[in-house]
Amino acid sequence: MNFSKRIEKMQESPIRKLVPIAEETKGKGKKVYHLNIGQPDIKTPVEFFNAVKDFDKEVLAYAPSQGTPELISAIKKYYAKYNINFEDDEILVTNGGSEALIFSLLATCDHGDEVLVPEPFYTNYNGFGDMTGVNVVPITTKAENGFHLPEKSEIEKLISQKTKAILFSNPGNPTGTIYTKEEIYMLRDISKKHNIFLIADEVYREFVYDGLEYMSFAHLNDIEDRIILTDSVSKRFSACGARIGCIASKNKDLMKQILKLCQGRLCVATIEQIGAANFINVPDKYIEETKEEYRKRRDVVYNALKEMDGVICEKPHGAFYNIAKLPVKNAEKFVIWLLKEFDINNETVMLAPAEGFYATEGLGKDEVRISYCLNVEDLKKAMKILSEALKVYPDKK
Amino acid sequence: MNFSKRIEKMQESPIRKLVPIAEETKGKGKKVYHLNIGQPDIKTPVEFFNAVKDFDKEVLAYAPSQGTPELISAIKKYYAKYNINFEDDEILVTNGGSEALIFSLLATCDHGDEVLVPEPFYTNYNGFGDMTGVNVVPITTKAENGFHLPEKSEIEKLISQKTKAILFSNPGNPTGTIYTKEEIYMLRDISKKHNIFLIADEVYREFVYDGLEYMSFAHLNDIEDRIILTDSVSKRFSACGARIGCIASKNKDLMKQILKLCQGRLCVATIEQIGAANFINVPDKYIEETKEEYRKRRDVVYNALKEMDGVICEKPHGAFYNIAKLPVKNAEKFVIWLLKEFDINNETVMLAPAEGFYATEGLGKDEVRISYCLNVEDLKKAMKILSEALKVYPDKK
Repeated sequence: MNFSKRIEKMQESPIRKLVPIAEETKGKGKKVYHLNIGQPDIKTPVEFFNAVKDFDKEVLAYAPSQGTPELISAIKKYYAKYNINFEDDEILVTNGGSEALIFSLLATCDHGDEVLVPEPFYTNYNGFGDMTGVNVVPITTKAENGFHLPEKSEIEKLISQKTKAILFSNPGNPTGTIYTKEEIYMLRDISKKHNIFLIADEVYREFVYDGLEYMSFAHLNDIEDRIILTDSVSKRFSACGARIGCIASKNKDLMKQILKLCQGRLCVATIEQIGAANFINVPDKYIEETKEEYRKRRDVVYNALKEMDGVICEKPHGAFYNIAKLPVKNAEKFVIWLLKEFDINNETVMLAPAEGFYATEGLGKDEVRISYCLNVEDLKKAMKILSEALKVYPDKK
Repeated sequence: MNFSKRIEKMQESPIRKLVPIAEETKGKGKKVYHLNIGQPDIKTPVEFFNAVKDFDKEVLAYAPSQGTPELISAIKKYYAKYNINFEDDEILVTNGGSEALIFSLLATCDHGDEVLVPEPFYTNYNGFGDMTGVNVVPITTKAENGFHLPEKSEIEKLISQKTKAILFSNPGNPTGTIYTKEEIYMLRDISKKHNIFLIADEVYREFVYDGLEYMSFAHLNDIEDRIILTDSVSKRFSACGARIGCIASKNKDLMKQILKLCQGRLCVATIEQIGAANFINVPDKYIEETKEEYRKRRDVVYNALKEMDGVICEKPHGAFYNIAKLPVKNAEKFVIWLLKEFDINNETVMLAPAEGFYATEGLGKDEVRISYCLNVEDLKKAMKILSEALKVYPDKK
């Protein structure tokens, strides 16, 4: 039996495809430090679990398709802390940020349409493009430049009749880059001039370091009808398993259209919504402490990378990832070698080869994404292993 | 700003679009019996809530993309009760039956391909077709014939080069029809001869009345590579809000492809999976009692409909819906009239106009779907209201 071309074309997750090799390594008794995945180790706020445990209905019924009123109210209050003011019908609860992105693409693009995406990008954007029949057109950014955007004219060259949106994450996964105000205004100008949507994935909104001022795309009041925020509680509240995200937009007509998609899949899990609604009662210091912890980890990773010969990595100012260019010919082979051949005291490290984060063929082959979701002690050990490994790796550039 | 054509084309849920009128009615102090939605009132087994309350991890982490091992094991055991034997890699946990259906379409059909679907069908099949760019080609079935399938040659006439699958629910929503063995074998023969998948939505598997023998499409061993089951705990365990479903198929290559879709959206809600895994410990008598309760309700509805002048309705043998052809010119207008103009002792009834359950223009205009998710006493009152309403409704055929 034949499958669809679109599903055959989909790539395996570059974050997960080497997992079987890591499992084999662990099976041999070797410890593996996982810098490949963005699974936080920070404790989920007890407020979530308390609300879940308080659930006392006898029937686990469908929630409203748009989300429970309690969760929508909590999301509104959360945004208000950032001076972003949404009304009830400007928020739709989704199955994580993933569904928010899929719905945004379905609502703005037809089959064969295009979205511009700065690369390297969150690898599943490719998958969402494949699922929705939308072509991802990369705006290439570079390690040497801290993955900041190219000139406006460079971006405009990529725009065609089929371009319906620019999709990006800010703070950036996998780069840790925070867009400057100039970059944000440039994207606004492009959106205005070419009549295209900006789909802003802001799930790492809290994780901005070094005193940088953070600006949400929702603050661009003059183009609010073309801003679509996609969001998630996964990272900020260390609640990846809740699968609670949202789409938010001041474009009420758009939201009415997307509501049809929400109705099609009926609702998002009821109990997880009840838990997530209670995040609004988490003291602000939870976020502050979490952010400070990630900042420390960022420093461990960045300071270690800086000391490694031949590694190129600008200081990342946000999220909990960075992309490092390594002095190796092929980063995927290097990662496999790390797992299979290398260890220090029977410990090794796993990284995500970055090629899968690019749409342009051939880019990222010598890069890795490093996720700093481990505690400082483990991170130090992991970076030591990486450093020693690079010294002896046989297939260097 | 323009939206995509595909989202503008999507219809509003015919089950939910009249809800604002019902709300208005209730706002005036009138009681509305909801026969329009399939939200069961049966208690969810305590096993679910107990497992949820026992969750004691401090970090709510991602679950595996394919589902938790515990839930997959529980699903295997559940199927084994029906002599259906799946292996671990033949089951993928999904966000309800909805996502199972969307993934099945994405994996078998490209944009512009076709699926045959017996109509009337679960109205969201239309939405899933719109989302995935797959054209729903209806196999028309009729109230007078209990919504059984037409002759094989009639179905074969609809098959083109673009036909990749036949999608259907059995027991049927919205018809309550159970396919006979002859119908099942006919679909098998068509699948074999024309090399197309059978996507069998069997979420109402338990709800088969009148001693009919139930046969799953998974029992068709000779075409197991082309059978895709889509399933859900929503109805059988009265757990619609859990959003736990699955895809199951013996076609391991297909499942490997669909796993990429699962990885793209990371995972299904962790806590709901933990709850659902414990359904395997629900005593069989829960299902038996639930089924018996629905059987009683079916009798109340069917016996009442039989007595109403001009109503056409064959006895439904499964699920908890039926489609009734009413002696009215336009069922949607009738439903609105029921809500706005009619009551008995300040009580009225809400039905789902059936037009939205058909793909063929003009069909179903004089039909409604009746969902019997209310207790017997309320159902009796609701059917009395319907009966009296039909006697006095001014716009009859």
